[in-house]
Amino acid sequence: MADSLEKLKEIFREFPGIGERQADRFVYFLLHKNKIFRDEFVREVETLGKNVKQCRSCFRFFDAGSTSLTINKTGANVCDICADQSRDHSLLMIVPHNVDFESIEDTRAYKGLYFILGGTKAFSEKKQQSLHTKELVARIEKEGKNLKEIIIAVSLNPEGDNTRHAIEDVIRESVKKYGIKVSTLGRGLSTGAEIEYIDRETLSDALSGRKIEPLP
Amino acid sequence: MADSLEKLKEIFREFPGIGERQADRFVYFLLHKNKIFRDEFVREVETLGKNVKQCRSCFRFFDAGSTSLTINKTGANVCDICADQSRDHSLLMIVPHNVDFESIEDTRAYKGLYFILGGTKAFSEKKQQSLHTKELVARIEKEGKNLKEIIIAVSLNPEGDNTRHAIEDVIRESVKKYGIKVSTLGRGLSTGAEIEYIDRETLSDALSGRKIEPLP
Amino acid sequence: MADSLEKLKEIFREFPGIGERQADRFVYFLLHKNKIFRDEFVREVETLGKNVKQCRSCFRFFDAGSTSLTINKTGANVCDICADQSRDHSLLMIVPHNVDFESIEDTRAYKGLYFILGGTKAFSEKKQQSLHTKELVARIEKEGKNLKEIIIAVSLNPEGDNTRHAIEDVIRESVKKYGIKVSTLGRGLSTGAEIEYIDRETLSDALSGRKIEPLP
Amino acid sequence: MADSLEKLKEIFREFPGIGERQADRFVYFLLHKNKIFRDEFVREVETLGKNVKQCRSCFRFFDAGSTSLTINKTGANVCDICADQSRDHSLLMIVPHNVDFESIEDTRAYKGLYFILGGTKAFSEKKQQSLHTKELVARIEKEGKNLKEIIIAVSLNPEGDNTRHAIEDVIRESVKKYGIKVSTLGRGLSTGAEIEYIDRETLSDALSGRKIEPLP
Repeated sequence: MADSLEKLKEIFREFPGIGERQADRFVYFLLHKNKIFRDEFVREVETLGKNVKQCRSCFRFFDAGSTSLTINKTGANVCDICADQSRDHSLLMIVPHNVDFESIEDTRAYKGLYFILGGTKAFSEKKQQSLHTKELVARIEKEGKNLKEIIIAVSLNPEGDNTRHAIEDVIRESVKKYGIKVSTLGRGLSTGAEIEYIDRETLSDALSGRKIEPLP
Repeated sequence: MADSLEKLKEIFREFPGIGERQADRFVYFLLHKNKIFRDEFVREVETLGKNVKQCRSCFRFFDAGSTSLTINKTGANVCDICADQSRDHSLLMIVPHNVDFESIEDTRAYKGLYFILGGTKAFSEKKQQSLHTKELVARIEKEGKNLKEIIIAVSLNPEGDNTRHAIEDVIRESVKKYGIKVSTLGRGLSTGAEIEYIDRETLSDALSGRKIEPLP
Repeated sequence: MADSLEKLKEIFREFPGIGERQADRFVYFLLHKNKIFRDEFVREVETLGKNVKQCRSCFRFFDAGSTSLTINKTGANVCDICADQSRDHSLLMIVPHNVDFESIEDTRAYKGLYFILGGTKAFSEKKQQSLHTKELVARIEKEGKNLKEIIIAVSLNPEGDNTRHAIEDVIRESVKKYGIKVSTLGRGLSTGAEIEYIDRETLSDALSGRKIEPLP
Repeated sequence: MADSLEKLKEIFREFPGIGERQADRFVYFLLHKNKIFRDEFVREVETLGKNVKQCRSCFRFFDAGSTSLTINKTGANVCDICADQSRDHSLLMIVPHNVDFESIEDTRAYKGLYFILGGTKAFSEKKQQSLHTKELVARIEKEGKNLKEIIIAVSLNPEGDNTRHAIEDVIRESVKKYGIKVSTLGRGLSTGAEIEYIDRETLSDALSGRKIEPLP
């Protein structure tokens, strides 16, 4: 009969980015915490499975228990953001993962809608994740001329580029049909960047994207 | 009413070494896993609280459900290692944490017993953890002349040194009374060490601890 | 009498970013190289002092021996870039160091002129480097209405910000007088940036600076 | 005609561990330093070639100009360490590089003699450096029964292991003939090592090499 310490360690080892030693530490962390903490932890994991739903419109996970479920025009279960009429429904941002959505929302700089692709387009055939590409096309077709701009927000690495190309391929026909603009996140210097050490491509982008500043 | 995604993220943020972004990823990892995985996870966390006990002799956490509980000579509940008569009961290794014990056991090079101190001796008064120092003295007193050597196994950093000094202070009287030897882990080159870049102290230790090798 | 190995090591230790061990390696590197290599090295260091001049117009170091010295309109000794009539003389980029100039030139994306400030504006009074601010103002005053845009190209860190503010302060009056625009390098995602991990400010900049892309 | 800035940058790029940007910084560092500094630098590089000799006995580089050249018993030009009768001539430490010798000397913990092998034994045939293995055997044969111990001091990585095996192969016959002991540097925890994160091999070594400490 397997040791229950070992079994929990094994589960934690499956968590993203967690190795053997950190899985061990998690288990001892839980043991050092009292029963009240562990009980709350267990309850929240159980609640997650019950309350959290995937939005039928943008495919992000959201708490349908706390945020009262909204029935939209078409009758589908949609999240609070998709249902929010104060947001700009003419803007749609496509992001690979829920965590990317969270990063963008944290900026408080975007007021349009989202579409969570459900992963990136891997290079290897074996690693392909099932992406919501069909649902993306259906969403665009449904919005039609109401959509003015689609923002493809992917990481600036080879897998991000590959994902962007895959998105462009599936949306090409629809965006032409409805005259929707397609944009990507601006490139340039990021916080902390030192001119001496930046790669040439980024520096070229920073040059061509330079901004006229009113002198204070 | 707080969002259940947010509540679980907050709990994960308390885990050792976990920041905001990784807490987010854990929650989405659980959402992408199916109900069977989450149920097993919840079950194992609950089992942990029920089955895992702290040994009355060495203070390590062990699974008392799977490993049948052993009643030792003095009647206290002790773990399988403390109760194992094939191990060398004349050797006692003191380690700060359960994870240190696991690192040592993984080497399969040590056959004595252990004592888990329950933490390190911090420099700041505020950060003091409650250490099992009284129980350590009681343990040594109980074993008395049966103990031949106590190994203090702490990290080679200032907090480890501080912890070693604290241990030496509390065991001094007993080890003198019973003539118990006190040792520390050997110092020298560790795997991957490059002579050109090692600090002088380690290199001096490696020199004085050099080993005569029979030529193969 | 000091050891000549030691003396050369000491000199190398003064080189930027070079510690004790790497200084040692440089000396042994030179010893392992033959006399021909060392002689060429010595000759090039000597040539540097003779041939390399600082441009009177942009303050960058340039080889006045190989690039024939140019006498410009005002009679001052100027470098090949300042004298190049095929470059856009209505654009002036201010950079802190010669190495920043090199990074920009390497992109082959900029065709205007430069001004090397000679350092950054430190926060501590003690660390102040003497910057060519007076010469910068004189340069702008000399160009007058011929200048259309000044690009302040500094790193995106606190010292860079501080330097930018110092530049703005000294050029304010002149740029107003001649109606010169002042711009800074564009901000956004840099190569390799992952949306999940970028800071909010950069992500906001990338959002507001998003680029409409014609679908290929 | 090539630019003299570029030519010097190219030479610095050949220095060990120096990339494009740091080579640039070195050149501008020299330009910002005055002529006195550059002249001294040039003089020291030239002196290096004249004064520094390779010891005929231990093959280390030493300053034969400052340290007056010593003629030993056999008439060969030897360095100050090889000629120093206060050092223990029964101990010989074999190290791959001059910098390794310096690291050991810096500890002030070793009073025997040295032999610089001139490199490590690479795995790839193409990368083989010419090692002073013949001279090592000749040195041992010359010392004969005066040698009590040979210390093989190599890094704890695959190339170090490979080098140690190569040394053992060439010295095997001689050490057997004269009954010379062969030792290697001690293994164990190095400064800063944390028990939780050390590899198993090092931890096993630290356990078997544990040291009895008199309680202070």
